[in-house]
Amino acid sequence: MVSLNGFAMAGGDGDQSYTKNSLYQRAIIDAGKSLIQKSISDHLDPKKFPASKTFRIADLGCSVGPNTFISIDNILDVVKFKYLNINANEIPEFQVYFNDHTFNDFNTLFKSLPPNREYYASGVPGSFYTRLFPRASLHIVHSSYSLQWLSQVPREITDPNSRAWNKGRIHYADAGEEVINAYSRQHAVDFSKFLNARAQEIVPGGLIMLILPARTNGVPHSQDPFAKNNVRLGACLMDLARKGLIDEEKVDSFNTPCYMASPHEFEQVIKQNGRFSIERMEGLPRAKASHIPNSPKI
Amino acid sequence: MVSLNGFAMAGGDGDQSYTKNSLYQRAIIDAGKSLIQKSISDHLDPKKFPASKTFRIADLGCSVGPNTFISIDNILDVVKFKYLNINANEIPEFQVYFNDHTFNDFNTLFKSLPPNREYYASGVPGSFYTRLFPRASLHIVHSSYSLQWLSQVPREITDPNSRAWNKGRIHYADAGEEVINAYSRQHAVDFSKFLNARAQEIVPGGLIMLILPARTNGVPHSQDPFAKNNVRLGACLMDLARKGLIDEEKVDSFNTPCYMASPHEFEQVIKQNGRFSIERMEGLPRAKASHIPNSPKI
Repeated sequence: MVSLNGFAMAGGDGDQSYTKNSLYQRAIIDAGKSLIQKSISDHLDPKKFPASKTFRIADLGCSVGPNTFISIDNILDVVKFKYLNINANEIPEFQVYFNDHTFNDFNTLFKSLPPNREYYASGVPGSFYTRLFPRASLHIVHSSYSLQWLSQVPREITDPNSRAWNKGRIHYADAGEEVINAYSRQHAVDFSKFLNARAQEIVPGGLIMLILPARTNGVPHSQDPFAKNNVRLGACLMDLARKGLIDEEKVDSFNTPCYMASPHEFEQVIKQNGRFSIERMEGLPRAKASHIPNSPKI
Repeated sequence: MVSLNGFAMAGGDGDQSYTKNSLYQRAIIDAGKSLIQKSISDHLDPKKFPASKTFRIADLGCSVGPNTFISIDNILDVVKFKYLNINANEIPEFQVYFNDHTFNDFNTLFKSLPPNREYYASGVPGSFYTRLFPRASLHIVHSSYSLQWLSQVPREITDPNSRAWNKGRIHYADAGEEVINAYSRQHAVDFSKFLNARAQEIVPGGLIMLILPARTNGVPHSQDPFAKNNVRLGACLMDLARKGLIDEEKVDSFNTPCYMASPHEFEQVIKQNGRFSIERMEGLPRAKASHIPNSPKI
């Protein structure tokens, strides 16, 4: 078992702005800033990396910015402060890897890199459910609002011969136990793959920091705000199918590859996986759309 | 002075297909393959990197592929072979950085990455005349057909008050000594910046491998095939200006930021810079357009 510090943060229960909305995500980043910084301050010890002249950070699921740059700056501020407190003459150089799917718009990301950044920037294409970096090469892995996306829709829910076939719906929230369980299993498999890949890539003493939308422990999926949105969308699509405007088979074959796990579920996978320990897990204050300046009404 | 091995290859004198033509470049890569592999074989000693679990390679001026992938595969083959000969159980993992200007199409590059590659791929945006990587983090730097591009047009040649003002031309080949000297100085400054940046980024014992179009030692600029093309193009533009189809001032203000240095000039800058030694410098066999299957007539 690799001796690592792990750190997962779950972003509390949601409201209806749990869409991939950059203003909302910015509010989440601001809300999580002090928590991220406190976690680095408490759980990262630069003395564990005596030979490292380069401190490497990866942001997984970076999208096209600018939120990814703000997160990285928040992390860098406190890491530099920690090094300064040990020996001002031995501040390492920083290298930041921005990762997202191969079809992410890296061209836009690169063009918007902060010109006065104090790190060497690099883009890494590929799924974070696979290995992306060499062994023991990263000191901090950060991911914000990305791990709710599964690597794929669970296969059985698109199979008409399976008991978990999700006919007439695009999500699990209003479905039977079989469908919910299929999604839950997929999440556990994916998150475990994520942890296995990172366990090889992170140096001993490194940190993973995750900001995630989560379902409150004990709240049924049908009551989760994120899931409710998917149910509404599915119902609209089925209405269109009934009116003959779209093909019902297309609705049957489409499912959102997204799962709202509870903190308890994350905890369970991390413990079963055994490669990381949880150093801190906290809910963030609710960041409603109304808190965001000039935010659109959703 | 950093103790490094340096290795520069100059791609001999040119023919009229010295344009940025990917088929032509592929022919150059094929012609240079054995030379690259022999150079790694003779001048790279993995025992100099005992602590490195990751072997890092950068391709500077990678464009969008596929030539960059072919070059990397050629390099990897022989590096792996060298490691295998020492200890088959201690083959490092490979990380490859593909670098080009920020406005390069990294999206296309990433989508065309070989699916079965045996390295972790990453894109690095920015000019190779600046620092791009952390200190002592690269083992091999490779650049093919890119260093003839200057960081900028020499300022004095666009200044009507300068003796080096390049009025009525877009290049130096048919210009006076002042213009040629301005280009030559810019090349020396740029190449020196390139060497200084790389000297910090490469580990002791690392290699730089450059494939370049070059002017044969002693051949006047006016006789260099690459330069002749620019002279023809400039004359065409001036014809258009005389016919009133384009503005003559526009022709005056445009100059190609490209310089065909001789092997002797490269040698001189490397020696003056003093951060690298030249381990090998050879002309490649001429790779004419006629040698390229299905190549267009140029």
